[in-house]
Amino acid sequence: MPSTALTFSSRADHRAWLASQAALPRGFRVGTTRFDFMPKEAPKPAKMTLTLIALDTPTADFAAMFTKNAFPGAPVIVGRQRLGEPVLGAIIINNKISNVCAPGGVEASEKICAETARLLGLPATAVLPSSTGVIGWGLPVDSIVTGLPAAVASLAAGSVLPAAEGIVTTDLYPKVRSVAVGAGRIVGIAKGAGMIEPNMATMLVYILTDLAVPRETLRALLTKAVNSSFNRISIDSDTSTSDTVALVSSSAVPCDDLAAFEAGLALVCRDLAEDVVRNGEGVRHVIRVQVKNAATLSLACALGKAIVNAPLFKCAVAGNDPNVGRLIQAIGKHVGAHAPDTDLSKLRASIGGIEIFANRAFRLNPEKENALVAHLKGAELYPSKPSADGVFAPPVDYPPHERCVEIEVDLDSGHAAATVFGGDLTHEYVSENADYRS
Amino acid sequence: MPSTALTFSSRADHRAWLASQAALPRGFRVGTTRFDFMPKEAPKPAKMTLTLIALDTPTADFAAMFTKNAFPGAPVIVGRQRLGEPVLGAIIINNKISNVCAPGGVEASEKICAETARLLGLPATAVLPSSTGVIGWGLPVDSIVTGLPAAVASLAAGSVLPAAEGIVTTDLYPKVRSVAVGAGRIVGIAKGAGMIEPNMATMLVYILTDLAVPRETLRALLTKAVNSSFNRISIDSDTSTSDTVALVSSSAVPCDDLAAFEAGLALVCRDLAEDVVRNGEGVRHVIRVQVKNAATLSLACALGKAIVNAPLFKCAVAGNDPNVGRLIQAIGKHVGAHAPDTDLSKLRASIGGIEIFANRAFRLNPEKENALVAHLKGAELYPSKPSADGVFAPPVDYPPHERCVEIEVDLDSGHAAATVFGGDLTHEYVSENADYRS
Repeated sequence: MPSTALTFSSRADHRAWLASQAALPRGFRVGTTRFDFMPKEAPKPAKMTLTLIALDTPTADFAAMFTKNAFPGAPVIVGRQRLGEPVLGAIIINNKISNVCAPGGVEASEKICAETARLLGLPATAVLPSSTGVIGWGLPVDSIVTGLPAAVASLAAGSVLPAAEGIVTTDLYPKVRSVAVGAGRIVGIAKGAGMIEPNMATMLVYILTDLAVPRETLRALLTKAVNSSFNRISIDSDTSTSDTVALVSSSAVPCDDLAAFEAGLALVCRDLAEDVVRNGEGVRHVIRVQVKNAATLSLACALGKAIVNAPLFKCAVAGNDPNVGRLIQAIGKHVGAHAPDTDLSKLRASIGGIEIFANRAFRLNPEKENALVAHLKGAELYPSKPSADGVFAPPVDYPPHERCVEIEVDLDSGHAAATVFGGDLTHEYVSENADYRS
Repeated sequence: MPSTALTFSSRADHRAWLASQAALPRGFRVGTTRFDFMPKEAPKPAKMTLTLIALDTPTADFAAMFTKNAFPGAPVIVGRQRLGEPVLGAIIINNKISNVCAPGGVEASEKICAETARLLGLPATAVLPSSTGVIGWGLPVDSIVTGLPAAVASLAAGSVLPAAEGIVTTDLYPKVRSVAVGAGRIVGIAKGAGMIEPNMATMLVYILTDLAVPRETLRALLTKAVNSSFNRISIDSDTSTSDTVALVSSSAVPCDDLAAFEAGLALVCRDLAEDVVRNGEGVRHVIRVQVKNAATLSLACALGKAIVNAPLFKCAVAGNDPNVGRLIQAIGKHVGAHAPDTDLSKLRASIGGIEIFANRAFRLNPEKENALVAHLKGAELYPSKPSADGVFAPPVDYPPHERCVEIEVDLDSGHAAATVFGGDLTHEYVSENADYRS
């Protein structure tokens, strides 16, 4: 079950709630600047926002996890090196261009880090770079260097919201989640997922805390939290070349209860991951799949992913169509191809608490069908309607509610369980990724 | 390169060509019948077509391959048993309901086989059943048994076209391919892929020949042909619970040249597979990916599949957007997740013969961009436009041409190669699978 069941009636309502979550932990400041530039590869100017997250004092306690894509972006290549450095003092993030496989990309990222470091009085290796946007284009390094002083000048403590807004591109709304742990706080922001702008998917997540947790512990806890949150979501099965999750502690507050910190971190990651899905490209239904009593954790995760990545089932959900055949097809597809020895004889499946499959056969009748349709309609975020030119766009820029399509798959053949989040496959997704060709 | 480069200007033009391909090999007759029935699980009547393929004399020389989905349909379960029987005399196929995981499904299939056999004077085990359509519903056995005599009465030699038309459901057009080998012929028909009707994907393929090839040879050749044709296509990555490819020889003509038979079978399978993609759900661009010089065949196939199954790249193709970043992302996603030791340092990639990636970096400029857009537009099957209510449907019921989006990926690290076919991801796909909820 969800930790929260928020509803929002307007953008203002949602923003007020975000502001209530956004207090920065001690020891951090954030700043942003926005400017026009001329891409080398395109015929018209574009806009870029720089977001700077700075620590009052460089910290040894930081962690980061990056994409597994075999063509990682230059900032990911640089970021992996930063994990071996003694301290981190700042994170510099740009949107619009992801700096992936562009000639001279690593040098461009290092140059921006060096200039950021110079302005902040840090060693260049104490700055972590992030980029998101078009794959293939090169960063406008001169424009960024020119813009950096304004970002530094805007640095302010108080709220993480400017950074949460600075890193988004075509996200419908910023994403902030936080939790208090003892005398300290954990605050996370995220952008993505699916496609951020109509050129490339990127998920960037920054989690800030003032609770003092040593580097190695922080890294172990981040791995654990990410594996059961961000690694259990999928909008469209496409893996960004830039995915990054960073966790930084200012160590301003002693951490007296590591178990509470771990639980708080897990909660922030899980809620942010769910936010990313809810604001995913064209998502009109969030699908929560709970796989229970599986023989192994990897099987439980893989079955959940197989369901939320099955295009036909995703389309059915988009149409409020309880097409249970497509759900069973998705399970059978995965098991047949990747785990043929799996025992499916005791599999039970339900949607919205309504049993639809047991003892190797469907359990269907017209009354259940009506109840399933009602469950799907109740989880819909907004109605779908094209504009006059046939382009579909979401009519809301806030999450109206946090209800999900609830799917439970019980294998009754072990003790492993996993919860996976995904979205439906909608006209809004296709419009965002095919119709906006400039 | 394609073996054929046909163009069709109208449905009549296409039908005339199909008729020219459709001569039945000696020893076969086909017949169909169509009737209304009342599904137990639904509130309104539906229509079903029965298609019967009969041999003049039962044959020992037949082969079949079935879905790997772990929840196979009842006809697949029965079909696997039939492979052990001494002879095959007929194939009975129904559309509308796929008979998958329905209570009593195997018994229903066997009853239909027995009744078909009785009418044809065959043992029940000499009839192969196939079903396609909604998953979860039960077959209307009584209605089918009542309809069988009409199907038997309509059996005729001459053309396979009635069967090619009988097995389709929402296919835009029937699919027939044939080749002459010596004094005999190989004729194949197919339905699918993607979704056939808005409830479930099924691909059914029946290949008939009069050339005498012994059972074991036939089975080995079918496996080989299927692996390099039907197993190298993907519309939406979803694996039907009913996929079936059957190859039956009447042995009416001596086969003097087994190599020519093998080549002819491979050609029929490859062309039918490409037809299935071209008529796939909502497909507006067929994508042909040629992976070359890979270390292993499995890597070459997997990379091709990763590209044609990457939703973001498929959307870009739908929009005539040469988004090369999404192509490289798709390769990197597969390698990072499944083959992390792969050497990608010498990877070269081109679209429409235009190099877009080499030496670990993109090779882009505005002139190439224009040429890539022109290539994509040239491969489009029809323009996309919604009807007044926002529903998208293909405006043609024939394949206007056989041009593809041509992608070449050269790994320069081995000698394996594979060609994979897929389609774009379009509004027509979403409309067909989400918007037609009754």
